[in-house]
Amino acid sequence: MEQNIFQLQYAMDTFYFLVCGALVMWMAAGFSMLEAGLVRAKNTTEILTKNVALYAISCIAYLTIGYDIMYGGGVFLSGIETVDPSKVLADFSAREDGFTGSAIYSAASDFFFQVVFVATAMSIVSGAVAERMKLWAFLAFTVVLTAFIYPMEGSWTWGGNAVFGLYTLADLGFSDFAGSGIVHMAGAAAALAGVLLLGARKGKYTKDGKINAIPGANLPLATLGTFILWMGWFGFNGGSVLKLGDIANAHSVAMVFLNTNAAAAAGAVSALIFAKVLFKKADLTMTLNGALAGLVAITAEPSTPTAIQATLFGAIAGVIVVLSILALDKLRIDDPVGAISVHGVVGLFGLLIVPITNTSSTFVGQIIGAATIFAWVFVTSFIVWFALKKIIGIRVSAEDEYSGVDQADCGMEAYPEFT
Amino acid sequence: MEQNIFQLQYAMDTFYFLVCGALVMWMAAGFSMLEAGLVRAKNTTEILTKNVALYAISCIAYLTIGYDIMYGGGVFLSGIETVDPSKVLADFSAREDGFTGSAIYSAASDFFFQVVFVATAMSIVSGAVAERMKLWAFLAFTVVLTAFIYPMEGSWTWGGNAVFGLYTLADLGFSDFAGSGIVHMAGAAAALAGVLLLGARKGKYTKDGKINAIPGANLPLATLGTFILWMGWFGFNGGSVLKLGDIANAHSVAMVFLNTNAAAAAGAVSALIFAKVLFKKADLTMTLNGALAGLVAITAEPSTPTAIQATLFGAIAGVIVVLSILALDKLRIDDPVGAISVHGVVGLFGLLIVPITNTSSTFVGQIIGAATIFAWVFVTSFIVWFALKKIIGIRVSAEDEYSGVDQADCGMEAYPEFT
Amino acid sequence: MEQNIFQLQYAMDTFYFLVCGALVMWMAAGFSMLEAGLVRAKNTTEILTKNVALYAISCIAYLTIGYDIMYGGGVFLSGIETVDPSKVLADFSAREDGFTGSAIYSAASDFFFQVVFVATAMSIVSGAVAERMKLWAFLAFTVVLTAFIYPMEGSWTWGGNAVFGLYTLADLGFSDFAGSGIVHMAGAAAALAGVLLLGARKGKYTKDGKINAIPGANLPLATLGTFILWMGWFGFNGGSVLKLGDIANAHSVAMVFLNTNAAAAAGAVSALIFAKVLFKKADLTMTLNGALAGLVAITAEPSTPTAIQATLFGAIAGVIVVLSILALDKLRIDDPVGAISVHGVVGLFGLLIVPITNTSSTFVGQIIGAATIFAWVFVTSFIVWFALKKIIGIRVSAEDEYSGVDQADCGMEAYPEFT
Repeated sequence: MEQNIFQLQYAMDTFYFLVCGALVMWMAAGFSMLEAGLVRAKNTTEILTKNVALYAISCIAYLTIGYDIMYGGGVFLSGIETVDPSKVLADFSAREDGFTGSAIYSAASDFFFQVVFVATAMSIVSGAVAERMKLWAFLAFTVVLTAFIYPMEGSWTWGGNAVFGLYTLADLGFSDFAGSGIVHMAGAAAALAGVLLLGARKGKYTKDGKINAIPGANLPLATLGTFILWMGWFGFNGGSVLKLGDIANAHSVAMVFLNTNAAAAAGAVSALIFAKVLFKKADLTMTLNGALAGLVAITAEPSTPTAIQATLFGAIAGVIVVLSILALDKLRIDDPVGAISVHGVVGLFGLLIVPITNTSSTFVGQIIGAATIFAWVFVTSFIVWFALKKIIGIRVSAEDEYSGVDQADCGMEAYPEFT
Repeated sequence: MEQNIFQLQYAMDTFYFLVCGALVMWMAAGFSMLEAGLVRAKNTTEILTKNVALYAISCIAYLTIGYDIMYGGGVFLSGIETVDPSKVLADFSAREDGFTGSAIYSAASDFFFQVVFVATAMSIVSGAVAERMKLWAFLAFTVVLTAFIYPMEGSWTWGGNAVFGLYTLADLGFSDFAGSGIVHMAGAAAALAGVLLLGARKGKYTKDGKINAIPGANLPLATLGTFILWMGWFGFNGGSVLKLGDIANAHSVAMVFLNTNAAAAAGAVSALIFAKVLFKKADLTMTLNGALAGLVAITAEPSTPTAIQATLFGAIAGVIVVLSILALDKLRIDDPVGAISVHGVVGLFGLLIVPITNTSSTFVGQIIGAATIFAWVFVTSFIVWFALKKIIGIRVSAEDEYSGVDQADCGMEAYPEFT
Repeated sequence: MEQNIFQLQYAMDTFYFLVCGALVMWMAAGFSMLEAGLVRAKNTTEILTKNVALYAISCIAYLTIGYDIMYGGGVFLSGIETVDPSKVLADFSAREDGFTGSAIYSAASDFFFQVVFVATAMSIVSGAVAERMKLWAFLAFTVVLTAFIYPMEGSWTWGGNAVFGLYTLADLGFSDFAGSGIVHMAGAAAALAGVLLLGARKGKYTKDGKINAIPGANLPLATLGTFILWMGWFGFNGGSVLKLGDIANAHSVAMVFLNTNAAAAAGAVSALIFAKVLFKKADLTMTLNGALAGLVAITAEPSTPTAIQATLFGAIAGVIVVLSILALDKLRIDDPVGAISVHGVVGLFGLLIVPITNTSSTFVGQIIGAATIFAWVFVTSFIVWFALKKIIGIRVSAEDEYSGVDQADCGMEAYPEFT
């Protein structure tokens, strides 16, 4: 009978992973809609193609190479396809921590949950390089990031390996619950490297120092994308508790949902108000970025804050993201959707506030961890982007940029009857 | 071992709340898309901003004030953040109703489920006042409704408190399973008060008595919004069973899903056919409103009807909503998305049919409950709208209404390249 | 205490069905958005109306007639509304296979899961006949397919009945896990019969043998629809394991999620690359159809392949779908969204690869099963379409086709301000 109880726990924890994974997969749709809404009509088909393709490529690259680098387990997930229930039960009976110990679940559900995270990291890049990067250069980079760059830094953090055999981040007090740094700041670092080599869109910054707003073509899509991401984030953070099936863990999952929602709400409100003060307008795109900033900020530690702390963290994130977007524009770093600010700058903020509520992490550990992740991803990404620039080029021709990458790369307009 | 079984039940019931809550949160996206699709292009950014902001504000207001009013528990949810598993287990062992008794789950999951309901109530308002209300007046009203007005009536119904210490609705035989009245009719009452003070959109009703249709700008969005709401409603009604983890409750949740779907389907079909008979056209927006009407009607009691009863209730609701929309137009009450008809008129209908299948409710109790909720929400809302009208004004200038509130309030067009 | 364990299993398996069912219901939104994005603006309101109405009609037809034909159980689901927990427990105690045996769950959750499958089959039809079929002829066909044609073939496969009392498909080694044939190829067969009687859209094929591309009006919608379908498919395939609550089944569900995702990803990538080779462009619509093809292909058996096999199957499906779309155009079979290729041709492919990984199926059985389903659905559908053509006509007038079916059938444009 005890074994049947464990069978239920195994099933429950597996299902919990799968539901959360499906929600994270859904974030791919969120990034697609957000980015498609924020670019101009002439570049919409291409950004959609990029988003579908990057998700698909990420899944294949992580399946065949990345997962093995990050967590080990051999080529092509060998072994996870088959499970011997009697062996699982025997392992359960033999272990010391028993029912309330670490979760035992299907390794296939764990892979499913992990693979959708990789795609999230890569989705962050596509927005920042939008409207001017060559499609196939982008897809080539996608392979390298998802098969190698992300899994390497993931192996140092969630995988528990020492960084180049030198130091182990967890031992230094580094903690990143669901990936403010490991996923979001990493994606932003890869994006920043690309943007620096790529340059700004024509007309964004004029010689006399003016910064031109380039409005997105479809704000309902951008709003839909934000709501999708908000919803998907419950899976992203909630699944990162890694176990559901006892009182303590179930409560932890509930707190993660509550805090994730609170931080997003506060980020939206604070960005709305702050932008109103600055620009005298209720700026929808800043409000959306504020919500996303709240989500990124809470991701490094959504389980230990109180609801009020989560609200405050989100509110601060909403202000930071507005300031960061303005600052990047001053630096002439052109990021059409604000991805570097939302995921990079606020991702770092998320890492730095972990020690406030999680006493097992240290401020020094957070800084070393952030520096390690950023340095690794930025440098390797820069090398890859640079190589791609030299070999096949990463920027579309001025002519294609003017007429839109949809025609050049995809031969198909997104809204042929509207524009 | 018995305690481990209970731990699983606790985890299962917590997760069930969280999944249902995430689906209800998703309804915020549904309302956004529905309303963005049914307004004109020039007012789209603003309605999106309203929807994102109202959801975010609702979460903060309910967290800091509303939840305490509705269910007690002290300031800022004090206490729900931490759980002592051994104490939960001791409580479980001590209670009499045991495994099949009322659910025990993480209070954080309950809060998460409750907070998304508040936002639903407020979402109903934004559609009815669309295209002419000042953004910041609306947001100010949002704070009052979600922090005070809704929690007060919620405390009399789901909270179990006596109405001003005078009478207790449950004792009179009032029953509202998931909120046809408490959430939907309440939202519509607040909307009606606002609409009466706000007046109709310019050009909607002409002096010669003509009623002009003002077509929505983006019907795919409106359809998407309806599907999102339909999906989210499974969480809205399904989660309102409040427990999953035994045979009787699990079956009840299943019946709720089945009946919710059946009522929506029947509402869509009956509205489609009825509108075809009346207007000789297959009216998409009436069909969408018919589906929503079916959902609202079944919400007061989705667990006791048979599937055929749910289908019939939904079909009647689909006819009522068409008639109500026509009647409100005759009364020159301008509701751009039909929210008062869908949520108010049909919400009342939903309350009134509860005693047909739920013998623990009474017809008199339903009427008293409906009257109490309506009177409270309508009167308090009217006062707040009135005060806002006097202090900051609730209607945009005629000029801004003509050129669109997007430019006036948000400085940003929703579709800058399409219109 | 053993009974409490079983109560939890019952609740878990019921909830698993409901969550998966909600995801399949969500596919109705996916088909709507996909099809609305791929037709021209002037036919968008109508295709939205068709999609909402077909989902709603399917639910009512299957509730009142279809479910009884397919699985028995009497008129109007008699009996499934009420459950006696003590009787369920007694049945459980009496059975031999016990805890790890076949699932016991609320029959209401099973109905909910089944009813959303019917709608999926019918959704496939609407895309293929888009832009030229009369709305009400389509809806009349919907009633027949979902009340009778689909339930009949479903009764021979999942229902286990002999085909006209002659032969039993399962005995011949036919296996179709989640419905590559039973749902997808069946929908495509009904669509093909309709398209043959309906003819191509004006201007699609010219007399000199030229094939004209007719671009869809809104590619972000089509992409969103694909992502929705991708997400919903986790419920479609994952729920078809039919039980979650023990180690073996939970792992099986996890493998199904993993493989479903892998096949879709591979289909998208292979279609993208193959179309690039053929057309020198990154063809977004082919990429979307590639993802859907991967999903359809894995649906007949998502639980037994390894992840690499699922990836390969999906990759082949992505190539097949591109070739099939080109071939159908050569044959002048006009299918605006590629539904016959995605669901029919690839559905057949999915059936044929089952024996590679599932040794309990046979190649001969798969062919006989596929032939049986196709023959039945195609012939009966052809008869119904033919009768509708003679009685009320199935094709809109040339004038209405030119000006768009939105005005003719719905009296309402989808994008009144954009076009």
